[in-house]
Amino acid sequence: MTVRRDPTAPWDTARAARRARLERARGVWPDRWVPPERVTPLLEAILEPGDRVCLEGDNQKQADFLAGALARVDPARVHGLHLVLSVLALPEHVALFERGIARRLDFSFSGPQALRLAGLVQAGKIEIGAIHTYLELYARYFVDLTPRVALVAAQAADAAGNLYTGPNTEETPTVVEATAFRDGIVVAQVNERLERLPRVDIPGDWVDVLTLAPAPSTIEPLFTRDPAEIGEIQVLMAMMVVKGIYAEYGVQSLNHGIGFDSAAIELILPTYGEALGLRGRICRHWAVNPHPTLIPAIEAGFVESIHAFGSELGMEAYVAARPDVFFTGHDGSLRSNRALAQTAGLYGCDLFVGSTLQLDLAGNSSTATASRITGFGGAPNMGSDARGRRHATPAWLRAGREAPPGPGGMPRGRKLVVQLLETFREHMEPAIVERLDAWDLAERMGTALPPVMIYGDDVTHVVTEEGIANLLLCRSDAERAEAIRGVAGYTPVGRARSRSAVEALRALGIVRRPEDLGIDLRDATRDLLAARTVKDLVSWSGGLYDPPARFRRW
Amino acid sequence: MTVRRDPTAPWDTARAARRARLERARGVWPDRWVPPERVTPLLEAILEPGDRVCLEGDNQKQADFLAGALARVDPARVHGLHLVLSVLALPEHVALFERGIARRLDFSFSGPQALRLAGLVQAGKIEIGAIHTYLELYARYFVDLTPRVALVAAQAADAAGNLYTGPNTEETPTVVEATAFRDGIVVAQVNERLERLPRVDIPGDWVDVLTLAPAPSTIEPLFTRDPAEIGEIQVLMAMMVVKGIYAEYGVQSLNHGIGFDSAAIELILPTYGEALGLRGRICRHWAVNPHPTLIPAIEAGFVESIHAFGSELGMEAYVAARPDVFFTGHDGSLRSNRALAQTAGLYGCDLFVGSTLQLDLAGNSSTATASRITGFGGAPNMGSDARGRRHATPAWLRAGREAPPGPGGMPRGRKLVVQLLETFREHMEPAIVERLDAWDLAERMGTALPPVMIYGDDVTHVVTEEGIANLLLCRSDAERAEAIRGVAGYTPVGRARSRSAVEALRALGIVRRPEDLGIDLRDATRDLLAARTVKDLVSWSGGLYDPPARFRRW
Repeated sequence: MTVRRDPTAPWDTARAARRARLERARGVWPDRWVPPERVTPLLEAILEPGDRVCLEGDNQKQADFLAGALARVDPARVHGLHLVLSVLALPEHVALFERGIARRLDFSFSGPQALRLAGLVQAGKIEIGAIHTYLELYARYFVDLTPRVALVAAQAADAAGNLYTGPNTEETPTVVEATAFRDGIVVAQVNERLERLPRVDIPGDWVDVLTLAPAPSTIEPLFTRDPAEIGEIQVLMAMMVVKGIYAEYGVQSLNHGIGFDSAAIELILPTYGEALGLRGRICRHWAVNPHPTLIPAIEAGFVESIHAFGSELGMEAYVAARPDVFFTGHDGSLRSNRALAQTAGLYGCDLFVGSTLQLDLAGNSSTATASRITGFGGAPNMGSDARGRRHATPAWLRAGREAPPGPGGMPRGRKLVVQLLETFREHMEPAIVERLDAWDLAERMGTALPPVMIYGDDVTHVVTEEGIANLLLCRSDAERAEAIRGVAGYTPVGRARSRSAVEALRALGIVRRPEDLGIDLRDATRDLLAARTVKDLVSWSGGLYDPPARFRRW
Repeated sequence: MTVRRDPTAPWDTARAARRARLERARGVWPDRWVPPERVTPLLEAILEPGDRVCLEGDNQKQADFLAGALARVDPARVHGLHLVLSVLALPEHVALFERGIARRLDFSFSGPQALRLAGLVQAGKIEIGAIHTYLELYARYFVDLTPRVALVAAQAADAAGNLYTGPNTEETPTVVEATAFRDGIVVAQVNERLERLPRVDIPGDWVDVLTLAPAPSTIEPLFTRDPAEIGEIQVLMAMMVVKGIYAEYGVQSLNHGIGFDSAAIELILPTYGEALGLRGRICRHWAVNPHPTLIPAIEAGFVESIHAFGSELGMEAYVAARPDVFFTGHDGSLRSNRALAQTAGLYGCDLFVGSTLQLDLAGNSSTATASRITGFGGAPNMGSDARGRRHATPAWLRAGREAPPGPGGMPRGRKLVVQLLETFREHMEPAIVERLDAWDLAERMGTALPPVMIYGDDVTHVVTEEGIANLLLCRSDAERAEAIRGVAGYTPVGRARSRSAVEALRALGIVRRPEDLGIDLRDATRDLLAARTVKDLVSWSGGLYDPPARFRRW
């Protein structure tokens, strides 16, 4: 008994549907360049109820004009869409669900819409498929979440539809590849139509419809941290990370999550790092956005290469003037690529440093709190051990030697995953807790699993203002919990520590205080920051860094 | 004390070097289209000693003309190159090291050159940086192994240098992106120069030099397995996998490594799978090359989508006629992409099935044997738990429930990783052993770690002709070892089993025999194969599959 499909059934339904939809589109406007005021009727012609649509929302760049145009379609004609996008950041995204135009959502991060998103869930106006890490969502674009229609944003296009993204290439090529090569339809909003593009980021024959947006697409300066807001506790933690982790393991390649904690690390490389003789010995290769707080380390000669997920507003001229460090095109501007930078962060880096809101005694961390559905972004990807990695570096081998060996005593390497957190966050909420809020959230949301950012067995070091807990060296769950208590300060879980047990861990090097590392607390001042203000960053850059207005205080 | 780099030092050394090299190239030939007979002098003009060079060697496609041209350069002028490529498959690759043109190698797989490679190591003619999994090597192209020069292969180019890869896009876009956007130089060999390309796979402004190769670039039919060579033991193992794993976990998305074992699974889906009522319930989405042995499952309606690493010789017309299943361009032909398919396999799939040469009692596996340096390919990537994955599927959740919970009792999901192997391989060598040859190899090669293909704690099931060992359910190392002995047949480690312990594991469902799964050994015949010959595959395809001559036996 062998089965065979109905031999008369077609094998090109998507291609035929594409043809029919583009035919309908031509009824709205005869050319592939559609005037902005005709885009809403165009989308009504192209889209069908229940379609899976990628409305490009990257970590930074947003197809905001197309989002607005989509939010204005007639819900009687277009409804029940399945929205796939990495970052749900715009009010228009939420409006799609409020109006019933979209029904289902698969995404990675919700940023400023986290509260409203939780409201939509409670009102039953949205079905959340899953919350992904970025690279995982892109993976599914090629497996079971391929978009039927992609609405994307680029800087410019030429007559042939070739796209120039400028520095914020981000995930546009990945989204377009998934859609265009499965007989989907690609609609692009661009800021400019040019005779000749500075470079081609996406070939024109992958793009179906173009429109000149009335305003440039939104880009968020997510990776700018004002050095003025960095305190001495952050300097102290940064010193511990640089001396106790980066120097000890010889970390060559790394990713920094965004935050004042990691900005402090970047800013003490040219001072403290230099004093320790670490230039050329650590932090040579980065998978990271062009953080303005990296400028001094670059100018000091610490940084050999940076591959970027996206760009950062105001960094364009600086990046263009540092092509030995950044990946740039022949046009001179940055070429970012979120999928490839996430891959670089996963497989090409010795270390990930990230901050978290909550950490439990097993080392599990979460940024989910009861009333907000924020999502993960890229942290789970870069903050996990890449078990398929096979190339060795000194840092990776040493981390592997400190950890228990693999099955059957098989030696292996390990990625360093560092969680940085002050023991108390704002409003004196303890950051280290017995039980993550994620448990309650999972129950209320009805998700299969609590939304854990990084699982405890992927974390190698927890760093607080009190010291470093090296979880690699812990040989039991109890030892791991006591090590975390040992750096938990005056939080309830910190006060519940056994003083003698923590001292025993200190003797083993599992818990290390600043003094154990030869760090004098009196040195932990803002004087160690190579730049203390945004203006200092501009000065370091020789005037090339042009910060957005909100960061200008002079 | 703050350090600053010498302010007069340039930041565009790579760009200046690129300019100088292209200037020298123009001295050899004034146009970007260089006649093939001038390519060797051109490479002598472009390359400098010690350069890092990606000489495109994909799993299938090879830039063979450029490899030959490079092997003929004068070693007095060009020597000590650092070669980065995923597959070292051509005699010319080895010749580069024998002649001293290249000195260092970072790669993923050596296939047919495994023996000669081992010889080069022993002769001290090569330094091996590391052996990588594919995606890991691509990651490093953007971190610390960025090529200065890339020598790549495409099907066709137009006057503007736009490249058309045809179905074997493979990793060309990834290699070119890393090189072109770090001020490197991209040289492409093409089979045709066309006025107008069927589609653009790589924009022309990413490419510097082109040459019309005298013969089409080599493509290996690596993914063709003749059903005639599949035996009844493989049918039996396939039945166990389909009924005992795919059906039980409800596996929706998967990757199959290549081999007769997994080909047998593909070929019994339309017969045995259909009889079990599994169509539409399992194996809907694949990250896999267009295996000819998948044709019957596609024709039977099992397969909804396939995203491919590369193509397969002879499958071109069939793929083009099945656009609902395969990712194809508007030109009709396959668009593959190895980096994205590896990402799909890592993060988007419930399950990986692979074969191995050796497995130890901890479940560690290796294809390394004493005299061959074969490398890993993609197996470590797809055969490892993607710890950054956060989206849930039934298969992933169930595997996670069977495994011990995460730290602090945190529930999580798991990828299914199945190792398929007969207990004895050729020459009656036992496949399940106390100690992997990889230990000795590491010692002889002086590598930091034994070359393990998949670590035991990533393996969820071991399947042999004797049954299935479910390692997820094992609660201790001893239990795991006994479970593996329980399916190790008459190998020495199998004979050393405790019969009562294995029976106890059977009662727990950890070891399952065919009869425990309701499989009658008498049903395990070649009659279950939907195609028993290559000719049958051609017939299933309605004559669209056009097998290479070596597979034609009629």
